Amino acid sequence: MSDTLALSLPAKGAPFTLTTIERRPLRDNDVRIDIRFSGICHTDLHFGHDDWGGTLFPLVPGHEITGVVAEVGSAVTEFTPGDRVGVGCMVNSCGKCAPCRSGEEQYCTEGFVKTYSARDHDGTVTLGGYSRSIVVTEHFVVRVPDGLELDRAAPLLCAGATVYSPLRRWQAGPGRNIGVLGMGGLGHLGVKIAAAMGAEVTLLSRSPDKKDDALRFGAARFVDTRDSEQLAALAGHFDLIVNTVPALLDVDTYLGLLGIGGTLVHVGAPADPIASYNVFSLLSARRGIAGSSIGGIRETQEMLDFCARHHIASEIEKIPADRAAEAWENLSGVRYRYVIDIATLGTT
Amino acid sequence: MSDTLALSLPAKGAPFTLTTIERRPLRDNDVRIDIRFSGICHTDLHFGHDDWGGTLFPLVPGHEITGVVAEVGSAVTEFTPGDRVGVGCMVNSCGKCAPCRSGEEQYCTEGFVKTYSARDHDGTVTLGGYSRSIVVTEHFVVRVPDGLELDRAAPLLCAGATVYSPLRRWQAGPGRNIGVLGMGGLGHLGVKIAAAMGAEVTLLSRSPDKKDDALRFGAARFVDTRDSEQLAALAGHFDLIVNTVPALLDVDTYLGLLGIGGTLVHVGAPADPIASYNVFSLLSARRGIAGSSIGGIRETQEMLDFCARHHIASEIEKIPADRAAEAWENLSGVRYRYVIDIATLGTT
Repeated sequence: MSDTLALSLPAKGAPFTLTTIERRPLRDNDVRIDIRFSGICHTDLHFGHDDWGGTLFPLVPGHEITGVVAEVGSAVTEFTPGDRVGVGCMVNSCGKCAPCRSGEEQYCTEGFVKTYSARDHDGTVTLGGYSRSIVVTEHFVVRVPDGLELDRAAPLLCAGATVYSPLRRWQAGPGRNIGVLGMGGLGHLGVKIAAAMGAEVTLLSRSPDKKDDALRFGAARFVDTRDSEQLAALAGHFDLIVNTVPALLDVDTYLGLLGIGGTLVHVGAPADPIASYNVFSLLSARRGIAGSSIGGIRETQEMLDFCARHHIASEIEKIPADRAAEAWENLSGVRYRYVIDIATLGTT
Repeated sequence: MSDTLALSLPAKGAPFTLTTIERRPLRDNDVRIDIRFSGICHTDLHFGHDDWGGTLFPLVPGHEITGVVAEVGSAVTEFTPGDRVGVGCMVNSCGKCAPCRSGEEQYCTEGFVKTYSARDHDGTVTLGGYSRSIVVTEHFVVRVPDGLELDRAAPLLCAGATVYSPLRRWQAGPGRNIGVLGMGGLGHLGVKIAAAMGAEVTLLSRSPDKKDDALRFGAARFVDTRDSEQLAALAGHFDLIVNTVPALLDVDTYLGLLGIGGTLVHVGAPADPIASYNVFSLLSARRGIAGSSIGGIRETQEMLDFCARHHIASEIEKIPADRAAEAWENLSGVRYRYVIDIATLGTT
């Protein structure tokens, strides 16, 4: 075992505590990573607040991790100490089911092992990236290409993969009209990535003060979702709308903006996850509602390589570890992702 | 103008009345059809009861029409008198929009003109197939192949196209697991067609007395949807579930039966069309909910040719016209489609 510092939530509603946690001794296939940066994802809050039940406390959140390899197990072939790497939402899966074999570990039929608040196959509870160090089996470690800064790359590990996967799946590219609904951590990366794929991107947002940023990130158009006339003008326009808004929405309104065969894809998980729709909204134009969950490991690597090639990274506000609680309070105000500078953990 | 006999509903809630209606004089592109059979579709009842509002009375229902060409306009090239033909749910569309140009008239951006209870481009109200004769522009007439009997072919024009289209779109075929939910007019054709496409078909139904029929129609398996254990055993099993049930259902239960990337497709329109889902049901396996509306004209012809090739037709109960009201009352009891023998209209 090796001790490391971490920010922990001892129980639901309790404040962050600087604490020492144990990381397992290296197994043959393990990589020990010195964490440099850890993004703050909305999901961290859902687990901290136990919104969906079942959070395992004490909780060390964080699944947008970048760092440097410190040590590798004897069977590790892909990484050596000093490599710049990342870890996202998964640290294990069964490895045997059809999804795992096809590189879609996020849909492992046994359920993938989440980076925090999950019971790993050895029975231990996983602890995430708000910490100095982490030990992860090689398969779940990805490489951060040279062109990407570790701090701005951290949010790509969850937010980036989460928007990249549906954009690829539903063929964002030249000649396709893509709507991105909401522009927070996920949405701003959705705009950047979809635009880099060559699609015509529209940001659908209730925050007109984000218009300039959206256009700068590559959007062709900003539409204020509170303006029903602007929305009505886009009836039937989109091939795909990626819904990054972590709240309930008027599904039928957005279905109406889809053209024939268009799809509204949920990538965010609202605290209250029940939504409703009118069957006619689907029937009238062969429309669909779908969900997409993060990305597989191979796809996450592909996304990082794509982002490096297109000079895409997250807009971030870098904060010291002792401001994590404050950041949680103000998550909707960030432009566009808080990233904890792990070097400050325990030093401030 | 030419007069013809029809069964008409003068107003919401009024009984069927045998009446004389006018069909327009033949235009250059028109085909006049002597109707032989007209299927009774659940949609007819929704319009008769004005479930969705906007029904144009007096109503002559019927959009599962087969018959024989009686006369053709001067510019008609595809049909000659004596040809065996069919008319489905559409009798006109704009012909210019992208969907129309690509053979998906059912998604015409101006809205296709329904075979009944719709205002046609010339301002007249369309009157359907519960009548002796109909005049339809050539493009919306399809050919009934020699191998198909006109009576058993009639339900294919709506019910057949409605299940064929999503089965093709979502690639029913060898190695694919297809669920058909509900076995009425649509469902029984869904089982037959999906099985003929080579898929493994499961009928999901709350009527165990339909099991033998389902297996005879080509299903590999019958599952009683009231038996939660049988359902649980199929978790993650299906690539596609075609929901033919014209009522609200527990969407999440059926989403749970879909494998990764699987889709639940609505093809029936319930009287109360609002359904709800849990976003996690979609996210957890990249699942989707979609809707599909009838089929385009080209696809309807393809479906008829497919059915003829595979010796598929509807199971029917043929009734005289004066039993139409009784059939409406007992629609859920039919095995599996009532078809009005139009030769009896006005003679009994």
